[in-house]
Amino acid sequence: MRIGIYQFAPVFGDREANLRRIESAVTEPVDLLVLPELCTTGYQFVDQKEVYSVAEEVPGGPTTRHLVKLARRINGAVVAGLAEKDDEKIYNTAVVVTPHGYIGKYRKLHLFFEEKEFFLPGNLPLRVWDIGPARIGVMICFDWIFPEVARILALQGADILCLPANLVLPYCQSAMVVRSIENRVFAVVANRIGTETRGGKQPLTFTGKSQVSSPKGNVLLQAPAEGEGFYTVDVDPSQARDKQITSRNHLFQDRRPEYYGLLAQEKAGG
Amino acid sequence: MRIGIYQFAPVFGDREANLRRIESAVTEPVDLLVLPELCTTGYQFVDQKEVYSVAEEVPGGPTTRHLVKLARRINGAVVAGLAEKDDEKIYNTAVVVTPHGYIGKYRKLHLFFEEKEFFLPGNLPLRVWDIGPARIGVMICFDWIFPEVARILALQGADILCLPANLVLPYCQSAMVVRSIENRVFAVVANRIGTETRGGKQPLTFTGKSQVSSPKGNVLLQAPAEGEGFYTVDVDPSQARDKQITSRNHLFQDRRPEYYGLLAQEKAGG
Repeated sequence: MRIGIYQFAPVFGDREANLRRIESAVTEPVDLLVLPELCTTGYQFVDQKEVYSVAEEVPGGPTTRHLVKLARRINGAVVAGLAEKDDEKIYNTAVVVTPHGYIGKYRKLHLFFEEKEFFLPGNLPLRVWDIGPARIGVMICFDWIFPEVARILALQGADILCLPANLVLPYCQSAMVVRSIENRVFAVVANRIGTETRGGKQPLTFTGKSQVSSPKGNVLLQAPAEGEGFYTVDVDPSQARDKQITSRNHLFQDRRPEYYGLLAQEKAGG
Repeated sequence: MRIGIYQFAPVFGDREANLRRIESAVTEPVDLLVLPELCTTGYQFVDQKEVYSVAEEVPGGPTTRHLVKLARRINGAVVAGLAEKDDEKIYNTAVVVTPHGYIGKYRKLHLFFEEKEFFLPGNLPLRVWDIGPARIGVMICFDWIFPEVARILALQGADILCLPANLVLPYCQSAMVVRSIENRVFAVVANRIGTETRGGKQPLTFTGKSQVSSPKGNVLLQAPAEGEGFYTVDVDPSQARDKQITSRNHLFQDRRPEYYGLLAQEKAGG
């Protein structure tokens, strides 16, 4: 199957312009297209009102409708980050659509820095979607630093981790290679580029280097740090279903969950 | 505080020779000395009888006694891998001693490849020891691929992860840097070198590159792939106690354990 990433600098606050750019950049069919976090709105909000004004319902809003059309045209699934409005509540969300329509959404569980002013923490369980050629799990940006997220998605059967991102730090890409190795899955980082300076805030420069890594930790694709581009790579998702890392080691059957209880305890390490 | 690693090629089956080499190599005081996995016996056993013949009680056996003397001489804690015998049961164990004596042991929870013929899987909970200048957690070699292990030790308050290892693959060192970043802890990989070819088995070449990484993911020390050596580095363990990775992100308080239940379920992903 073919995976595509569109790395670009969204125009702040202009959903239509961003959707047009995505539409024109994705020039060939892919089975799975991953777009950056908040790819229709930009990232650096100055107040809650501003986020509210650009957030939209999922799946009822215009972005989901538009992405379903895109999924039909490319004959593949699309994972894209956007600001979601649910009544008065705002989430940093990724929507998953296929040519058959909307199939689900993920709300970022671990919010980074000022996102805590603008979004509520995610309140949906981590889950996996079957998009036909592969099962995908979705996590968003800062989720990378919590190994629990990738592990849970892999335990649920994800072949491919999709990470829409707006990264400003350099650690995620090498960490996602380790997420691939420790879970024997593909990992797709769809990062944005460009600099945002809004409302007198410190400028944020996003670091590009969108990436696909393989279950054995090979970097199959890495985009440059700067520069817009639509990148594709062919992968065999069945490689992610072989968890037998030696003839006597099955990555998941070798786990010792009876010793892992602390991970799910609410007060651990607080 | 000063951390020391002695990277070497143990002589197979000759405990006395190996203890003498450790004794003479460690030429200066360190607060924490980490030695490789199975550092008094070698690695490539050919049958259970052979392991049984070199395994010893912990703390009752000669290696623990010897290491306590070493700890007194260097005025620091020692973490060292050895084959442990407990009645008829054999474990791949790491012992922890200080100048005040034996303080505990860890039995490898995740056995690699043929180790499953020779050792029982660990049956002690992951835990942390206070050695004075720092709190340490111990994991052994293949445990690196299970992010649960480092996470649990860090949640329990480990400042430094100690990993005695006999690595034959190249992934662990970069993964341990990510373990440092995702847990904001120091990580010490004490790997061995040399090649073992025993009983007509495939030769095993151990990959050296013993390493210390910092809570921010800097590699403070990396030994060469080949060559024996005693390596030291000074670290400030208080850096590992600051889990505030931005003014609004506390690495552990930001966890969402209410969504992590699957990690501790026994049938997950089997």
